[in-house]
Order: sequence, then structure tokens, then C-alpha cells
Amino acid sequence: MARAAVTRETRIPDLDFVQELAQQLRVDGIRMSTAAGSGHPTSSMSAADLMAVLMARHLRYDFQDPQRATNDHLIFSKGHASPLLYAMFRAAGAISEEEMFTYRKLGSRLQGHPTPAIPWVDVATGSLGQGLPIAVGIALAGRKLDRLPYHVWVLCGDSEVSDGERMVAAIKGVKGKQPVIPLGLGGRLMPVIPRHTERFRDLYRRREEAFGCDALVVDGHDLHAIDEAFSRVREASERPTVVIARTIKGKGFSELENKDGWHGKALPKDMADRAIAELGGVRTLRVEVAPPQPGSPAIQEDGTSVSLPRYEKGAKVATRKAYGDALVALGARATVVALDGEVSNSTHADQFKQAYPERFFEMFIAEQQLVAAAVGLSVRRYVPFASTFAAFFSRAYDFIRMAAISRANLRLSGSHAGVEIGEDGPSQMALEDLAAMRAVQGSTVLYPCDATSTAQLVQAMAGAEGIVYLRTTRGAYPVLYGEGDSFPIGGSRVIRQGQADRVAIIAAGVTVHNAIEAAAQLDREGIAVRVLDCYSVKPIDRQALREAARATGGRLVVVEDHYPEGGLGAAVMEALAAEPDPPRVVHLAVQGLPGSGKPAELMDAAGISARHIAAAVRKLKD
Amino acid sequence: MARAAVTRETRIPDLDFVQELAQQLRVDGIRMSTAAGSGHPTSSMSAADLMAVLMARHLRYDFQDPQRATNDHLIFSKGHASPLLYAMFRAAGAISEEEMFTYRKLGSRLQGHPTPAIPWVDVATGSLGQGLPIAVGIALAGRKLDRLPYHVWVLCGDSEVSDGERMVAAIKGVKGKQPVIPLGLGGRLMPVIPRHTERFRDLYRRREEAFGCDALVVDGHDLHAIDEAFSRVREASERPTVVIARTIKGKGFSELENKDGWHGKALPKDMADRAIAELGGVRTLRVEVAPPQPGSPAIQEDGTSVSLPRYEKGAKVATRKAYGDALVALGARATVVALDGEVSNSTHADQFKQAYPERFFEMFIAEQQLVAAAVGLSVRRYVPFASTFAAFFSRAYDFIRMAAISRANLRLSGSHAGVEIGEDGPSQMALEDLAAMRAVQGSTVLYPCDATSTAQLVQAMAGAEGIVYLRTTRGAYPVLYGEGDSFPIGGSRVIRQGQADRVAIIAAGVTVHNAIEAAAQLDREGIAVRVLDCYSVKPIDRQALREAARATGGRLVVVEDHYPEGGLGAAVMEALAAEPDPPRVVHLAVQGLPGSGKPAELMDAAGISARHIAAAVRKLKD
Repeated sequence: MARAAVTRETRIPDLDFVQELAQQLRVDGIRMSTAAGSGHPTSSMSAADLMAVLMARHLRYDFQDPQRATNDHLIFSKGHASPLLYAMFRAAGAISEEEMFTYRKLGSRLQGHPTPAIPWVDVATGSLGQGLPIAVGIALAGRKLDRLPYHVWVLCGDSEVSDGERMVAAIKGVKGKQPVIPLGLGGRLMPVIPRHTERFRDLYRRREEAFGCDALVVDGHDLHAIDEAFSRVREASERPTVVIARTIKGKGFSELENKDGWHGKALPKDMADRAIAELGGVRTLRVEVAPPQPGSPAIQEDGTSVSLPRYEKGAKVATRKAYGDALVALGARATVVALDGEVSNSTHADQFKQAYPERFFEMFIAEQQLVAAAVGLSVRRYVPFASTFAAFFSRAYDFIRMAAISRANLRLSGSHAGVEIGEDGPSQMALEDLAAMRAVQGSTVLYPCDATSTAQLVQAMAGAEGIVYLRTTRGAYPVLYGEGDSFPIGGSRVIRQGQADRVAIIAAGVTVHNAIEAAAQLDREGIAVRVLDCYSVKPIDRQALREAARATGGRLVVVEDHYPEGGLGAAVMEALAAEPDPPRVVHLAVQGLPGSGKPAELMDAAGISARHIAAAVRKLKD
Repeated sequence: MARAAVTRETRIPDLDFVQELAQQLRVDGIRMSTAAGSGHPTSSMSAADLMAVLMARHLRYDFQDPQRATNDHLIFSKGHASPLLYAMFRAAGAISEEEMFTYRKLGSRLQGHPTPAIPWVDVATGSLGQGLPIAVGIALAGRKLDRLPYHVWVLCGDSEVSDGERMVAAIKGVKGKQPVIPLGLGGRLMPVIPRHTERFRDLYRRREEAFGCDALVVDGHDLHAIDEAFSRVREASERPTVVIARTIKGKGFSELENKDGWHGKALPKDMADRAIAELGGVRTLRVEVAPPQPGSPAIQEDGTSVSLPRYEKGAKVATRKAYGDALVALGARATVVALDGEVSNSTHADQFKQAYPERFFEMFIAEQQLVAAAVGLSVRRYVPFASTFAAFFSRAYDFIRMAAISRANLRLSGSHAGVEIGEDGPSQMALEDLAAMRAVQGSTVLYPCDATSTAQLVQAMAGAEGIVYLRTTRGAYPVLYGEGDSFPIGGSRVIRQGQADRVAIIAAGVTVHNAIEAAAQLDREGIAVRVLDCYSVKPIDRQALREAARATGGRLVVVEDHYPEGGLGAAVMEALAAEPDPPRVVHLAVQGLPGSGKPAELMDAAGISARHIAAAVRKLKD
């Protein structure tokens, strides 16, 4: 212990007080979960000593101003221990006892698992194993961008890093040479050694150390030991520190300590009464959590105007290249940051890396960490753009789903979508991404066909909220649009139309080019068609679709480089199905499992080439 | 080295031969990728020595009979090294030189990344980091079920376990007490130490050891060292062995060795010619890969008949409970196995665990490993059922996507779907799973509403091919169906209908019960409605939907406990949108981000309760 190094504005409560506080946290966790009839009181009781020591003696946080730049961050990665977290909020004076009893009730912000509906919660947790990788992003912001000495404290459960032990990971948000690496990086680990053995604890220590962390092993119910460990955590400067705390589930209530069958169960009223009595009854202790030092981030939004790249109509430019160009342009804004999954020369994020190396984060082949770090950077109010092959965002789908619940503002750019990628074959082809990304709550899904529209949409992404997904194409196709054209999110572009349109072809991304080719062929046959570029797949331009349906007597052909389910076709149908007179929609999408081949060959084999579009129009037109 | 322990039927080639073989593999990798104009020759050259030693001296595999039970398994987790793999097939006499040159061409089975379109490939790779966790499943089969001494060899790339080193993991498929644990378990790791340092190799060794493996570090171009390491691998009996091999990218062609900028690029013709010359020219060596010992799996399909559980109409039974009941019934078949993600008391897979502990595999909180192990068990032709909360299969979405390309037969049971789960809140609610799972190529998606239909569908799943996903519900609802009712995949059930039906309500799972309640209310108002139970969401019963549309003058209300995009609503629309006279579809789905509350409260707040259904029908009916 190096108490001398500690300087705080407020008096630091002693460990006698902390002991009482820990009991209050246990009692409150029991009270609120018993009142709710569900919850995880035993998982809360095990970590109560750890959290009591933390909030009373080590955490620096201004509950009056949760946006304060120098606040520590506390992430309950084991989100099911929400009764403990909410009991801490009550002890900090942030919520009333009355509100505490709204736990898990309809309309309460005190949900079963924490979400940022609560101002003191950074991110939603409850899908285990996400807290640490998100903390990496927050810590990267602290070290590399904010240059502020806040700490990121992460409470991890045993099962999410493995089984049988409880851990507190503390990742220091300070400058340092060493990248911040959590155990597991968003993956999850599995136990190899039975619970509660010396060998087990030693194994965990060795694992943490092998991953570049300092590891401390403590008795999670020994307040002195915890306090000393946390002091060492706060003094560490280079590497993240992991405190491996041996704890007892249900600690403090002898009837339940380490008993099987009580995970995730509220105590019945009579049992709760006995537990509260054994724990010394209801308390109303109040902790003055120490406020952080003053300070503000080294990087501030500076209102710099962005000058987007321009492209000549007809020039062949891949939309992934336009993504890179636009990202560099956006880099003029100091808060824009980029991350990539070790494919930046393919996604073209490497252009940003070269222009702004200090704001580029290489996340290597670890897409879950890629997305999680972006969430962490979003927590610190940066504007993160994360890129990899579109197919590989599927690796992080749970993280993206949870990021939506976190109300994180993420911009994801997935390149190499669809069979259009060609020879690399199906493992590299995103063919279910539009369906998966559309289904993310509150998401925006964009799929531009040319460089001009891509650049504009990348700029729009920077200002958009929620999960924004951009799908880019591998190959280079002609620039269709010029400077005057605008591409609002939720809009679309009519590429060609006329009074005599018999059918409207709805396309997005690469199939816009196939549709244009089909329309030209049909035009030579005297069949007029409208072509609509639905670059905004979600929200989709319902008005333009209605108008296209009206003008063509309800004859639509939708064509997409995606499997038939849930993509652009479904988006069009969902937009129009409830109309009084719904249009007929003939849907061309990738049939069967593709193999390798040239892009044009594969699009033709999949049934989405110009030839197939023209055939569908000919059949539908009458 | 303990050569004495080795007994093989064929003469073992000496290392002089192996050296020539390695050069042939390099040359062939260059030849085929240069001919294709794309591919990863340098990534193939680095591992050529490792694979030459393996195939000539350690692998036991009958290329004439890839289904032979005692064959070793070889997984190229770094699937982009396909030129090396295909060069090995040529050297083994499995493919001709002519076929080799079809690499990456339309229609060729030699795709950019390996898939089981090739009979000697177990699983598709190309999304990095999946080979090892799948190998765990194969090894579990070998140790626990087959009781056969085959080896599972996995070639991992540097970036997929981290950066800067190349690894060969060998997991022994033999009996043993220790669970088989790969490094990372389907997660991916990130480098912490610069490339090519002693400290780096040491770190990797320590990581492997911390995860319960024996780790050997070798020079990946020293044939003697590799041979000795592989001998030790084959003699190891308890723990998986990891061979960490330091290699040089582009090894053998001095112009490219360890040069940046040559990842994933075919050599131009002139450069290829120089490389082939430096490598000693084209060779036509042929390797007689040693055949495996005779043997057959300890467990065989025995044709035991299955007696499904029966339920009394009206009794309240959760469909997740019926899943557990039916799984136990299916357990009468010796090849049926079950896996769970440490929630088996919630998914009810624990019933199988109790009945057939030797065929139950606890995968803990590691859903990627859960799915990967199921893929491995499918490779060994077991009938795996994997279960967890439906929301948490999103963690394994990339594995599921790849399993579809692998043509694996997986049965996934996701419990606790939708807002119906209640108080636990949105992190635990699967609300995008129907969209995501429908978009998986060749998938089947089932969502029964009662115990009888669930049990029948679980039985149907055992015989189905591809990725079959079952969505079950947390709460208990009345049994609607009796013994005589049948539930084929692709079917549906009319719950109520009449001549005067004004609207058809299309529901699945929990919303069937809400629809029934709405129909009863509407009936009291004199509004006749049809109710359709679309338990087979994919394939959907297009004929029944057509008939419902026809009978109601094209008035459908679809209601689902899922976000609005890509789920049951989209499935119905996709099925009917191309009809000459498409129906109007009013779609009720979960609007907004849910919180905590009682199931009925949350369904009402989401707009999918009986009240909302009835209101939608009243509005649509005229």
C-alpha cells in the first residue's frame, strides 16, 4: 500500500465504514430484487466488497456531472449484477430509495441489465465478455487522444473470462507506450481447471500476464487486500492491471453462500428478511465519491469545415476507394477517428492511417475488438469509423446488437460485399449483411453505387446517430453523379424515368450498374423502365418507391447482390406492403451458394446480372 | 525424437525427399495462383515446409476414402493458403495437374478458399480463427464418442492467433481426462510484442501453456526440427500440442522473402518464372500418404425408434421445456449429441445432460466455441443440437455463416426470444435473430407456438440438412395441438378459419397466442378472422399464405415478437410479393428499444399484444 500517493478533495472513508457500506450494498441488492421478483442478488453479494472499496476509496466520479471529461469509467461487464450497481447509485445519492424499488419495472431506467438510459452507465451490458474490449476503446481514447488520467474500471464475472473466479480489470487511461490489451479481446474463454484451487488462481494470473497485463490475486472479501490492490492499480502507469479476486457467491448470507441453484434468483420474502437480518439490517449510508481532477480533453471538436473529394462522371472508382478518400477529408475534424481490422489496404482506411496516424487504431484480425473499441471511443464522444470486409462484421454481430442498446454512435464500413468480389469465394462475400444490419435496432444501412454518393454519405454518417452501416463494393464502376447531386440519408435517386415507364427497377450498390445496362438494352427493345438507386436501404425512401409503383402500375423489379432474405427486397416490400394497392415485386437476389469466378460471371450465375434483370422486366411488364 | 514408436504401412519418405516436396508445393502454389491471376502464394510458401513434413511423414489419411473413420483431419484455418492445400492434393495424387489449373475459376471446386465441395476438406475456412475451435469439436468426438486415435491437425496463420508468427496446432483425438482447449476459443487475439523477437516467441509459448496446451517452438523451415516436433505431437496423449513455427513469408524466392506488399497477390508471369527457376523448377513428385489404422467409431447409428413426449391440450408448457423433453427422447438415438452455452437449466438442455451425460458437452459462456464444436461433431457425422439464449447466437453469427458454407448439419435452439422474456431487458432479448438466421444460406428457421409442435419439429430437425434454427419461448403457454397433428418443415397450421373471414392473422411462436386472443375478441364483435400458425418461418408455407390471402380478399396482419426488419413479416411478403395480385400486409412488430417489465406489459408496449392485433384487423377489414 502506498497511501501517501493518494490525494483527494474529500475525506477518504475508512475500512470500517467500507465494511458497513458493503453490507448496505448487499442488503439493497436483496431488497430490490426481492421486490422485483427477479434478478441476481447472489451475483451482486459476491462483488459487494470489491465495489464498496472502489466507490469509497478509489473511484473518482462526479455523479452530478456524468459527462465530466475526467470522470473515471466503471463498466459492469457482468451486467446481471445490476442490483449491486443500482445499490451503489443509491449509496452515492444518485438515486432515491423509492426509485431503487422501480427495479425491473416497466418504464424504469433501472432495467434488469444496465443501459445508458441511466446517465452514469456508459454502455449496455448483459451479453457477457463485452466490458473489457469496450474498456480498451475508452482507455485508448484516454491515452492517445484525451490525454487525461482517468481510469477505466471493469467488473467482470467469472464465467465471462472463465469459470470459478471473479475479476476486476482496471485499465489505466494514461499515456504509455504499451497498447492496452484485455484478456480475451472480446472472445470468451473456457475453464480448464476445477474451481477454487490454488492452481486455478495461478493459471489465471499466468494468463493475464501472458496477455500483457499485470495480475494481482486477492481474497475478494478481504477489504485491506482489495484496498491495497486498487491502490496499486491506480499507481500503475504502463500496463493494464487485472485484479483476480476470489469471492463467494451469496457472500454474507450463510444460507446461500456458494450454494448451487441460486444463480439469477430473487430471494423469497421470508428468506430475504433472514438475509437482511444476518447482514445487519437496512442502512442509509451515503458515500461522497471523490470527484475527479479538473481537466479537458487534448482534442476538441473544432468546427473545421470538410472538403469532400470530387469525381469526374464516368471515371471508374470503387466505392471503397471513395470511402477512404472521404474519410481522409473528414479527418480535418479533430474528433474523427478510424479503426480497421488489419485489412486497411483493402477497405482504404489506410488512407486515413497515412494522413492521421495518431487517430488511426489498428485492431488486427479481431473484429469484436474492432467494434468494441469503436464503442469505447464513442463513449468518449469521438466520431469512430470502423472498417473491415463486410462479411467479417458478422463476427461482431453481438457487439453491434449491444452497441445499439448502448445508444453508441458507430460508423461501420464493410467492403467487399456480395458475389461481386469474385475469385476469393463465399467465405469473403457478405451476402447476409443487409438483413443482419437492418435488423439492428435504430440502425441506418447505406449502399451507394458510385464514388460521389459514397463520399457524401460518409460525411452524413459522421453526423448520424446510432449504428450506421455502409456497404462498399470491391470493383471500380463508373461515377454516375456530379457535384450538384445530393444524397440525404433516407433518400434515393432516380437514374432514369419517363412517362411510359412500364416497370421500375430498384437497385443499390453494384446492381445499379447492372440495372442501367438492362435498362439500355430494354430501351433498344422499346421497353421504357425507371431505374431507382436506393442507396439508403434503411431508412428507405418510401415516397420514391410509392411514386415508382404508381408510375408503373405497380410493377417493380428489385435486384440485389445479397441472399434473398431480409435485404433490399424485403426493405422495399416492408415499405409498400401495407399500401392500399401493393405493387408486384419481382425479386432478383443471389440464389444458391456461390463459388469462385470473375465478378461478372458470378453475378450472372447468381441471377442478378443485366441479362436477368431485363428478362424479369420483360416478363413483368404486361 | 522417438522414431521407434512410429509404425506405418508405407515407407516413410526421408527428409531429402521432403525438401524436394516442399519446393514442389511452393512451385505449384505459384503456378496455380499466377494462372488464376489472384491468390496467396507467399502465404502458401511460408508453410510449405511444415505441410511437406506433415503429409510425407506424419499424416494418416486415405485419399481414396475421405469418409474413413480413422483418417486424420487436416484443417487449413488460414484458408487463404489454399494454393498450398491444393498443391498437397496434387502431390497426393488426389487431383490432376489439369484440375489444379482450374483454381479460382467459375465452376471449379478449387475455390479461392477451401470448402467441402472438395471431398478432402472437412469445413470451409477463410474467416480466420475458426479452424481451432472446430477442431475442438472433432477432437471431442474422437476422444469421447468415436474412441478413435485420429489426429486433428490445424494450420493457423499468424494473424488469426495474433500477428507475426505461424502456428500449427495439433489436437490429439484420443481419450484423456483433460478437456481440449485451443488458444482463444474462437475469439481472436491481438499482438502485444513486435514481430520476430525472442520475447515474442516466448510470449506465445506462455500463452499456449496458460491455456492448457503443450507448446513447442521451432524454426518452420528446419525440416528436422519440424519432424521432431510432429513426432512429439503424435506421441502426446493428454493435452493438445501447439507447434509454434517461425516462418518467412514468400520463403524460397529471394525477391519476395518477408517483403511487404505481397500479401494476397499472385506473381506476374515473369516473376513467377524467376521464382520457379529459383525453386528448382516444376516437379512431379508423388507422395503416398500413409493410410490410417483400421477401426470404426464406438458409437454407431442404431436405428432406435424415438418416442416423443406427449402433452395435454390446454396444459401450459414452455416450448423451451418441450425442446428439452424432445431432446431427451431423441437421445435414444446414439448419434444424437447436445451442447450448451452454460445456460442449460434455462434452455432445458440440462434434461439431456442428465439422461445422457456422456453425450452432453458444456461449452460454457463461449457461443463461438459452442457452434464451432457442433460443426466439428457434424464433421464426424454426429447429430449435434446446440442451445443457448437466442440472443447469444448472435455472438457466433460468423461461425454460423461459415457453417452454412461448410454444409454442416447444425441444429441450433435459441431460447428466451423476443420481448416476451420480460424483466431481464433488451440485452437478453433476441429481436433480430429471425432476420439474421433467415439470411443464412440454405437455412431452416422454425418458431413453434406450443409443446406438441415443438417436439415434432425437434425430431424433424434431427433429420434436416444445413443450418436449422429453432426459436423457443421463455414463458409457458397452452398446448394447442394434439397427437394427430403433424408439423412438417415448410408447413403451417390453420388455427381457426371460416367462410366469412375478413382478415387473416399470420403469427408464429408467442404471437399465435396473442392472435388467438384477438380473434376471440373480434369474434365477439362479429368480425371473423383466420389465424395461421407459421411455425416454419423458412421455408414458409407459401401455399397456405396464398390461400389465406385469397380467402380474405388479400388482407393479412402479420404479428411477430421481433424487430420490424427481415423477420416473419418479411418472410410473408417475400413469399407473396410477386403474386399477380399481392395482398395488403399490415405488419405488427416490436417498435422501439424495449426495456424491462412483465412479458404481457412489454408485448403490449411493443405493439404486438392481442389489443393491437385486434385494432389492426378492425382497421384493415374493410
